[in-house]
Amino acid sequence: MTTTNSLQQAFLQTAYPIGGHGKRNIQVLKEALNHYEDELDSDQYGKGKVIEDFQAEMAAFFGKESAVFFPSGTMAQQIALRIWCDAKGVKRVAYHPLCHLEIHEEDGLKQLHHIEAVLLTDEDKLIRLEDVRELKEDIACLLLELPQREIGGQLPDYEELEAISSYCREKGIKLHLDGARLLEILPYYQKSAAEICALFDSVYMSFYKGIGGIAGAVLAGDEAFTQESKIWKRRHGGDLISLYPYILSAEYYFKQRQSKMGQYYEEAKELAERYNHCHAVETLPLLPVTNMFHVHIHVPKEELEAILIAMYEACGVGLTAYLRESDESSCSFEVSLGDRYGHIPKQVLGDAFEWLDQTLRARVE
Amino acid sequence: MTTTNSLQQAFLQTAYPIGGHGKRNIQVLKEALNHYEDELDSDQYGKGKVIEDFQAEMAAFFGKESAVFFPSGTMAQQIALRIWCDAKGVKRVAYHPLCHLEIHEEDGLKQLHHIEAVLLTDEDKLIRLEDVRELKEDIACLLLELPQREIGGQLPDYEELEAISSYCREKGIKLHLDGARLLEILPYYQKSAAEICALFDSVYMSFYKGIGGIAGAVLAGDEAFTQESKIWKRRHGGDLISLYPYILSAEYYFKQRQSKMGQYYEEAKELAERYNHCHAVETLPLLPVTNMFHVHIHVPKEELEAILIAMYEACGVGLTAYLRESDESSCSFEVSLGDRYGHIPKQVLGDAFEWLDQTLRARVE
Repeated sequence: MTTTNSLQQAFLQTAYPIGGHGKRNIQVLKEALNHYEDELDSDQYGKGKVIEDFQAEMAAFFGKESAVFFPSGTMAQQIALRIWCDAKGVKRVAYHPLCHLEIHEEDGLKQLHHIEAVLLTDEDKLIRLEDVRELKEDIACLLLELPQREIGGQLPDYEELEAISSYCREKGIKLHLDGARLLEILPYYQKSAAEICALFDSVYMSFYKGIGGIAGAVLAGDEAFTQESKIWKRRHGGDLISLYPYILSAEYYFKQRQSKMGQYYEEAKELAERYNHCHAVETLPLLPVTNMFHVHIHVPKEELEAILIAMYEACGVGLTAYLRESDESSCSFEVSLGDRYGHIPKQVLGDAFEWLDQTLRARVE
Repeated sequence: MTTTNSLQQAFLQTAYPIGGHGKRNIQVLKEALNHYEDELDSDQYGKGKVIEDFQAEMAAFFGKESAVFFPSGTMAQQIALRIWCDAKGVKRVAYHPLCHLEIHEEDGLKQLHHIEAVLLTDEDKLIRLEDVRELKEDIACLLLELPQREIGGQLPDYEELEAISSYCREKGIKLHLDGARLLEILPYYQKSAAEICALFDSVYMSFYKGIGGIAGAVLAGDEAFTQESKIWKRRHGGDLISLYPYILSAEYYFKQRQSKMGQYYEEAKELAERYNHCHAVETLPLLPVTNMFHVHIHVPKEELEAILIAMYEACGVGLTAYLRESDESSCSFEVSLGDRYGHIPKQVLGDAFEWLDQTLRARVE
């Protein structure tokens, strides 16, 4: 059974939840499907106009030869790393200690593919060229996640990316982009997706983060790579007879939100400033570089929950449904902006943050 | 690019295609979704009412402790076999030479799970108790596919099933049911799903065959088994944030067609008789035991294609979109009945088979 705690309950009842695009209910899919004719044929095991056209569109967007639609990023990325490992005959890759493959996939990469992962740098840092240079083991592939979600969506400078890319090419290391949130980084870099992807041998992007689709992902690279990925997709059980519910919603919301990432980014900076003006609150990063950041509040979890519930009820603004306990005296949560934020009246937002600041200042520490 | 041959083209233009429920276009999903309120929340990584309620419903239907929804049967079955192999510490299973895992999954079981498969009996035969008794190697699990699709959907007697089940239990061999078409076998056995499933330790059923959903499958067994299957589902990349497009359509069409399997079975017997009355044609099995069978026609492929195209144009009845070449002088195709067959006027059907019989008799052999 699914249980909801009281913070989540209170959050769900606010008129103005701050993050995301809206509720994840089935209306999201209905809206996308209603955009298409009833007679549109299903894809069929990776073939057919619906999937082939969208894959071609995505390949062009990434500036890659070819792209393949996957039900999930988990599947797409394990497969990308497997292909690069097999190509080099080295079953070892490197990535960040808080990489999705390391912390959210029940060790699929090791259990299914027997690939060893070298963890680069500390959990709270970005991977630097230095970290890659200092690698002692031979690796087939380096995975970079842009932005690095688990540390608030941080990004290296573009010059550092270029340097890492050049170094990897020189050393025969394939560079894979975990671009789950690829669209979200373009406003900061002021680059096209193709310009970013040109630095990488393979790229994955998700359709249900900033884009707000139902599920699904795309993996892109050269023709030989994507052909091989289709074989592995079948082996994983991802070559479904019909992926169109995910493909059509991906296409629909990609078109709708592709151009909004700059807006979300600006709003994230504005919102982070509101947080940073509050007593005992700071964001990571202080100045967001995408539509996301983390909020750290120096108040014990139980006490903060009570404060937030009171705030949600008093102001109608919902900050988060969950708190992560950092230590006995502080917690954090993730913020990721989408369509919702722009619809909240500024006065309501201002009052809510004023309430929060006052309340945090007034408490007996 | 997807190409269509001329037989397929002609088939697609017939007023009365014989098999299946209807076109696989997006209206199938729209119809199912329209049955549900817009506000219904998505499942979320295997949690939430939509998925939990349906899993509970399926577990009860199978008479098993627990059930898990999967995006595909490929994923569900590899995982089932992996769990049974790990439990016994024996990485070997046995199944039919034309088992889905052997011929349609790019060797996922071997490549991802390093499980060896012992192929029982000949390609054109059913697995008998004798075959299991004669096994020399120790195996963790025996997989039985009911009906055995690649040989026309044949079934062993219920008594033989019981005997195989007892033998496996006695020998510490887990018995897994590839019940992709589980509903389709119940009218022949005159048993409930739970009665059939009681003979097996784990069971998989598909939602897009006789049920006519979009995609997806369910895996059922005891609580420990299904809990472990959820971990592997995540490793495979199948624990999607939202599976509801498949779940809701599975539920909707399951309810709609669950009670129609007897009708499809009766119609399959009637249709097979029509085929068997035609010159140079015979069905496998001669008397169908489910809604499916194979049709073998003793005419070379190219010649038969021309005859069928002419028949489709003359009579408006479509038999198949594809022919499989058996040898230089004969071909075969699969028939699987659903909603469509019952809507074809008997006169139209009779005329079409009359035309086919006459034409096959008239040709110079």
